[in-house]
Amino acid sequence: MTEVSRRRLFAYSGASLAAGAAAGAGLVSVAQAVEQPADDGAVPFFGAHQSGIATPVQDRLHFAAFDVVTDDRDRLIRMLKEWTAAGAALTGGRPYGSAAGGLPESPPDDTGEALGLPPARLTLTVGFGPTLFEKDGKDRFGLKARRPAALADLPHFPGDALEPDRSGGDICVQACADDPQVAVHAIRNLARIGFGVVAVRWSQLGFGKTSSTTPDQQTPRNMFGFKDGTRNISGDDGKALDQHVWASAKDGAPWMGGGSYVVVRRIRMHIETWDRTSLKEQQDTFGRTKGEGNPYGAEHEHDPVPLAKLPADSHVRLAHPDSNGGVRILRRGYSFTDGSDGLGRLDAGLFFIAYQRDPRKQFVALQNRLAGSDHMNQYVQHVGSGVFACPPGPRKGGYWGETLFA
Amino acid sequence: MTEVSRRRLFAYSGASLAAGAAAGAGLVSVAQAVEQPADDGAVPFFGAHQSGIATPVQDRLHFAAFDVVTDDRDRLIRMLKEWTAAGAALTGGRPYGSAAGGLPESPPDDTGEALGLPPARLTLTVGFGPTLFEKDGKDRFGLKARRPAALADLPHFPGDALEPDRSGGDICVQACADDPQVAVHAIRNLARIGFGVVAVRWSQLGFGKTSSTTPDQQTPRNMFGFKDGTRNISGDDGKALDQHVWASAKDGAPWMGGGSYVVVRRIRMHIETWDRTSLKEQQDTFGRTKGEGNPYGAEHEHDPVPLAKLPADSHVRLAHPDSNGGVRILRRGYSFTDGSDGLGRLDAGLFFIAYQRDPRKQFVALQNRLAGSDHMNQYVQHVGSGVFACPPGPRKGGYWGETLFA
Repeated sequence: MTEVSRRRLFAYSGASLAAGAAAGAGLVSVAQAVEQPADDGAVPFFGAHQSGIATPVQDRLHFAAFDVVTDDRDRLIRMLKEWTAAGAALTGGRPYGSAAGGLPESPPDDTGEALGLPPARLTLTVGFGPTLFEKDGKDRFGLKARRPAALADLPHFPGDALEPDRSGGDICVQACADDPQVAVHAIRNLARIGFGVVAVRWSQLGFGKTSSTTPDQQTPRNMFGFKDGTRNISGDDGKALDQHVWASAKDGAPWMGGGSYVVVRRIRMHIETWDRTSLKEQQDTFGRTKGEGNPYGAEHEHDPVPLAKLPADSHVRLAHPDSNGGVRILRRGYSFTDGSDGLGRLDAGLFFIAYQRDPRKQFVALQNRLAGSDHMNQYVQHVGSGVFACPPGPRKGGYWGETLFA
Repeated sequence: MTEVSRRRLFAYSGASLAAGAAAGAGLVSVAQAVEQPADDGAVPFFGAHQSGIATPVQDRLHFAAFDVVTDDRDRLIRMLKEWTAAGAALTGGRPYGSAAGGLPESPPDDTGEALGLPPARLTLTVGFGPTLFEKDGKDRFGLKARRPAALADLPHFPGDALEPDRSGGDICVQACADDPQVAVHAIRNLARIGFGVVAVRWSQLGFGKTSSTTPDQQTPRNMFGFKDGTRNISGDDGKALDQHVWASAKDGAPWMGGGSYVVVRRIRMHIETWDRTSLKEQQDTFGRTKGEGNPYGAEHEHDPVPLAKLPADSHVRLAHPDSNGGVRILRRGYSFTDGSDGLGRLDAGLFFIAYQRDPRKQFVALQNRLAGSDHMNQYVQHVGSGVFACPPGPRKGGYWGETLFA
């Protein structure tokens, strides 16, 4: 079953069900289906690193944070094993278990809305939040001693207006795909598998990528209309990844070797205010032009940034590695729009996602600097936040988090 | 300006701004740009009918309902004229006015986040709600006498749990595109143009189409994992469109000739409950199989439906034209997922959109039948609602709603 592609299964179960279910009953054994591996846009699932970090950024996002609702460590591990089997199937473009076949008296294993869709480069990236290791002073799963020092709680930054309902979580899953239906389907089915073990704490859809990890592609624009993530870490720059993104087993938490730490921030953009400011104010805020995206004092987007020519409080100048002792992070953020806010304003902004080797030295250092001085703070507000330790990639026959629980 | 494609403008203004804005000032006249019509996926904007109704359904949706916040009829008309100019530009893949060029001291006209993106088959479809004609007994804009009888307030249906913040509105705009960034950009810029005249009352993103108006394409699946809209009206079936979708000038409101009425419903799906029901219960609810989508008693999805072989309370049987005196509607709904609901459940479902010639005889008749008997009511709840009269398409040199205000 697990090697049958969704498209193949779809064709098969359809024909069988026409005869079977139309008669009102009939067991359809999907194991009869011809095996045929999916090969249309599937990203490898197993490996030293989780996919969805260095992977070229997909078009759409569904990110979910879960609370663990059981105290039973073995149940949690069993769920992670089941999640891993599901992750391998879904990223391969296959349903998890039965979808439209199976026993008529049982719920299908897979909810079915991705039947017939290709893998769409789906990646699933799992992380563990600080509260999984210790919550309200309680060592819930015997993991307290294994909490990495790098997984420190994020400090309060000036201007933070964090909503508890959009922050934190014991486990996170980042689902990225070129088709949002495939990403939503994946989160939904993991939530379904986890019923009784985890519950969705919050989730966020992202409709447009704002950063690229493939420097040859056109840099996407954020909701301020500016190119974002111009100098991002490239997903194929192994040296930069080793230096800035992948945790090493020697960093202090051996189980995190090959993993990474993700910081997410729901950044509300006050776009109505922004839209009433002058082009000059907008460009001064970034320190680059809106059209081409070239930094002030340079001609093209990717030219070296002559920092001294940018306004001292401009975003590009303050966030530049040269202003921060060489600190870099790998960004994979997405624009979001979640309806309106009751005051006639669109609830829109950036769901910031950044992977790094040690948030204390990277995101926290950068954000301390930006939160204090960035001119852009007039136009944004951080309303959601999370930090998670993303373990190394699952090995074949293993499971997400195996090095932590072993 | 209005004939310059976004891509072309982008290339042009970038180079100019490198020299101009980098020096901190400099007026860039975008009128200098070489004119070049957009031809990559633009849907014609002007015509007898608005686009976005019979147009093959695009992948993504941003739907917005606006309240008119002025009593000034002339200001409202001016805004509709400006919207029309913007609509022509945006659907052609061009920015509205200046985007990254223009006076540095002024805000750019266009917010810029679609610069460099193709038209993505963007359509913008405008409708007028009952409250535009009369609100709290007041004839706000001298339109009361022109309200079409077909634009009756929707009745309360059994099971309705409508939230005022997700219902109603004086004016609606449906933005559909294959790229969500293009659809979101369009709604945002119309809201921006309308500042002081209209304010967003509510808006809804849809990530996946659930109906097709091109019967040769694969039927999409909804969040229940079932194919939806199998027997939809085809966008090129002129006879069916004339009979069921386009209002005639002889229908009672001459200004609506060539227009259509849209009913929208935000339908929350209780997917966690659904996912725990058996395959048989799911299939019985629809009256068709989950895999192929064939109706009970038939072999293939598009076979004629042998109504007597379907459960009496099944959705397909109850909604079928043969059960409703031949009544048909043109559906263009989208799946949505708006995070979670605070109880660990995904806030997901169907944003139902249906176009028709007279809602009293079509949607209301159908929904009265479904709300009373449809087995699916166990799994869905209508939480938002709206009905709008969509005028005929704007003519070149005219504007949205010209036949109403003339």
